[in-house]
Amino acid sequence: MMRQLFCLSLLLIFSYSPLKAQRQYDTLVTQLLRTGLGQGEAFPMLMELTSKAGHRLSGSEGAQKAVELTLRMMKERGFDNVHLEKVMVPRWVRGSVEEAAVVVPEYWPWSLDVCALGGTVGTPETGTEGAVIEVKSFEELRGRASEAKGKIVFFNRAFDPTHLSTFTAYGGAVDQRARGAIEAAKVGAVAVLVRSMTLTIDEVPHTGAMNYEEGVPKIPAAAISTRGAEQISEFLADGLELRIKLFLSAETLPDIPSFNVVGDLTGSEFPSEIIVVGGHLDSWDKGSGAHDDGAGCVQAIEALNLIKKLGLRPNRTIRAVMFMNEENGLRGGKQYVVAPERKGEKHIAALESDRGGFAPRGISVQADSAVLAKILRWQQLFARLNAGDIGMGYSGVDISPLVDKGTPGFGLDVENHRYFDYHHSDNDTIDKVNARELELGAIVEALLVYLIAEEGM
Amino acid sequence: MMRQLFCLSLLLIFSYSPLKAQRQYDTLVTQLLRTGLGQGEAFPMLMELTSKAGHRLSGSEGAQKAVELTLRMMKERGFDNVHLEKVMVPRWVRGSVEEAAVVVPEYWPWSLDVCALGGTVGTPETGTEGAVIEVKSFEELRGRASEAKGKIVFFNRAFDPTHLSTFTAYGGAVDQRARGAIEAAKVGAVAVLVRSMTLTIDEVPHTGAMNYEEGVPKIPAAAISTRGAEQISEFLADGLELRIKLFLSAETLPDIPSFNVVGDLTGSEFPSEIIVVGGHLDSWDKGSGAHDDGAGCVQAIEALNLIKKLGLRPNRTIRAVMFMNEENGLRGGKQYVVAPERKGEKHIAALESDRGGFAPRGISVQADSAVLAKILRWQQLFARLNAGDIGMGYSGVDISPLVDKGTPGFGLDVENHRYFDYHHSDNDTIDKVNARELELGAIVEALLVYLIAEEGM
Repeated sequence: MMRQLFCLSLLLIFSYSPLKAQRQYDTLVTQLLRTGLGQGEAFPMLMELTSKAGHRLSGSEGAQKAVELTLRMMKERGFDNVHLEKVMVPRWVRGSVEEAAVVVPEYWPWSLDVCALGGTVGTPETGTEGAVIEVKSFEELRGRASEAKGKIVFFNRAFDPTHLSTFTAYGGAVDQRARGAIEAAKVGAVAVLVRSMTLTIDEVPHTGAMNYEEGVPKIPAAAISTRGAEQISEFLADGLELRIKLFLSAETLPDIPSFNVVGDLTGSEFPSEIIVVGGHLDSWDKGSGAHDDGAGCVQAIEALNLIKKLGLRPNRTIRAVMFMNEENGLRGGKQYVVAPERKGEKHIAALESDRGGFAPRGISVQADSAVLAKILRWQQLFARLNAGDIGMGYSGVDISPLVDKGTPGFGLDVENHRYFDYHHSDNDTIDKVNARELELGAIVEALLVYLIAEEGM
Repeated sequence: MMRQLFCLSLLLIFSYSPLKAQRQYDTLVTQLLRTGLGQGEAFPMLMELTSKAGHRLSGSEGAQKAVELTLRMMKERGFDNVHLEKVMVPRWVRGSVEEAAVVVPEYWPWSLDVCALGGTVGTPETGTEGAVIEVKSFEELRGRASEAKGKIVFFNRAFDPTHLSTFTAYGGAVDQRARGAIEAAKVGAVAVLVRSMTLTIDEVPHTGAMNYEEGVPKIPAAAISTRGAEQISEFLADGLELRIKLFLSAETLPDIPSFNVVGDLTGSEFPSEIIVVGGHLDSWDKGSGAHDDGAGCVQAIEALNLIKKLGLRPNRTIRAVMFMNEENGLRGGKQYVVAPERKGEKHIAALESDRGGFAPRGISVQADSAVLAKILRWQQLFARLNAGDIGMGYSGVDISPLVDKGTPGFGLDVENHRYFDYHHSDNDTIDKVNARELELGAIVEALLVYLIAEEGM
């Protein structure tokens, strides 16, 4: 028994950093809270980004402005090696015609709240007209293929609200937005209307990426507000025929150059070992992308800023990356891993915040179990930030090319009940962001990247 | 070693409920999530309460309406023994004069955003005028006693934002509101202005209870918005004299009768053993008391409602209590423990939600460590509701008379960063409440009271 206890003690002593380091990290948590909550800059930066750049879809003026703003934010805060990395991005534009889905006035004049889904083709100037057929799944659609021919397919499967995580609910509905136009075109439909990807019932359409498939006709695709979806569903349930004329002026222009924005705190001992912390700088062309993902961008900058403010110099390099083009191409994330600047660099960890600037709950780990075990040793430190929920899970879209190449990925987990109320819509504005919740996310990020920078991975 | 392991096994087998019960409780969590998030009634009830009763300070028409509404809500849902319990409550009224703090126009006409603190006397109709002296603490006030004489004392110690919990920040500032008028009167001041108890900088004054002391003159006391506080602080910092005339028409009328509202799910085996779950029905006369504490009231009703909807009959009696008069007297909480209806009842636990209807994080336990240990056995069940943070802490004001008599007390812990943005002000309205977050709190409450009802305490 005595010998076992002795072995156990040795194990405790040698398996991990000494008590002294633990005490230093405890102090670090206290300092991060004091500096972050007391003099945090995440919210002012987000205010500047959302008010000066506004929404910032890849290739837009707003996106270019966001590149310039975040470049300046990093330079002003004295980060090392602040620079742009060029990336060619797709350029989809909504166009200038007022988007509308007008009920053909057999009954009464009635215009539904719609907006083009990202990537869709437009309609002819005279609109695309068809009777509306409501379906809840691709399976149902295929079963009613002959009925759907020549019609506008209305995908109306709602989020399942019984999931605790709204991301799970989103995952159970988003196929309609992503592949609806493909599946509808396959059965000869002329256009699609997709119920907005949100749990609330409101008048605001939520956009988001949709896809086409080689060899399948490209038909126009629009999101309809959940209230509009409920209305036309009730209408159809009464057995009435509903004809709609859809007007969209969206189009895809040639790719144009844009940039990832990068800034470092150079490591003192192992400068070529890199820990990335990032978010995506582009947003949909609705609202001002405050939660998605202005929050993640300013949190990454603030994470480095907090470490710098505390006078700390990390052993390894901590890098903030503003990735371009997450929403409709992932070009920034893909370009980052193959850029010439990566030569001689070893990426030991990547962290992304892209679930909204809400109160953090913890960290999801996308790596093998040894990495999880390593992070779990620090759980008590994160618990002091109300972020002790650490487990396996998804990290982030922008860092997925890094994760695919073997870099351990980490995602900032947050309270997500409100996220899809705002997501990809005119509701995603800074008044929905709480400054303390946003800052606390930056503090959690600062802690994680600093611990990894000090201890290695 | 073998014998020790054997003893340990026996301990594990006999110390607590069998695995079968654990599996049943796991299923219960799943059912609660499905029923609550899928068909929750907490938000519709809160909508009805806040829109039909509005704000509901003790003794007001709104309070009486709230009594009637919640009585009906419990009856309609088929609770047992739904009834009112009479309690005499204080009746403080704001009066009909427009409340104002007008800068005496030596410089320019300027009216500050103020409101009477709850319990204050009014000013004469012609107002109470004085030069303003700013202090940050009672200690500073006493040190400048001769200077403060005849003046209006302006208490301007802000919340310390570096606390992770906003309740801790509140606790560090609220002495100014609670005792400011007493301390100022002791040094001969004519009135007090108190910086609103909030972390945000906005134009909205936040009211709340203030006190007088026997033998100390009663001087008028008002809250000033944080923006107004910052403005006059800057003004005074320039060395200028600021004279203000304060107009308040508040007064205290004789006590009048009101009610606690009570409804049960009667226990099948031990009906006289009671588990209380409650909130307070009264609110300040600002906003509509959506978070404080309409949320806690509807969550208590919904907790019983969920258990009933699942067809469960608890072993012990689970009781929802809408306590009257938490904000300015605690008469409901005090009356509850001495009411004739308590005869033959044994209260084994009491749970309160009074920290806003935000996403739950866990449960704070106000009892001895054996109770905490008991609750911690269920931690994994609560973790499935994102509410696994269980530790020692405060329970609730309304149930404090029960706790004082030895009943274990429990408080629903929630994300609190936004709470004081709304608290006791016109901002506390239902649009600040997220339906899922509110419902999840009710689900956590349902789980806790049901577990205790089944297993005893």
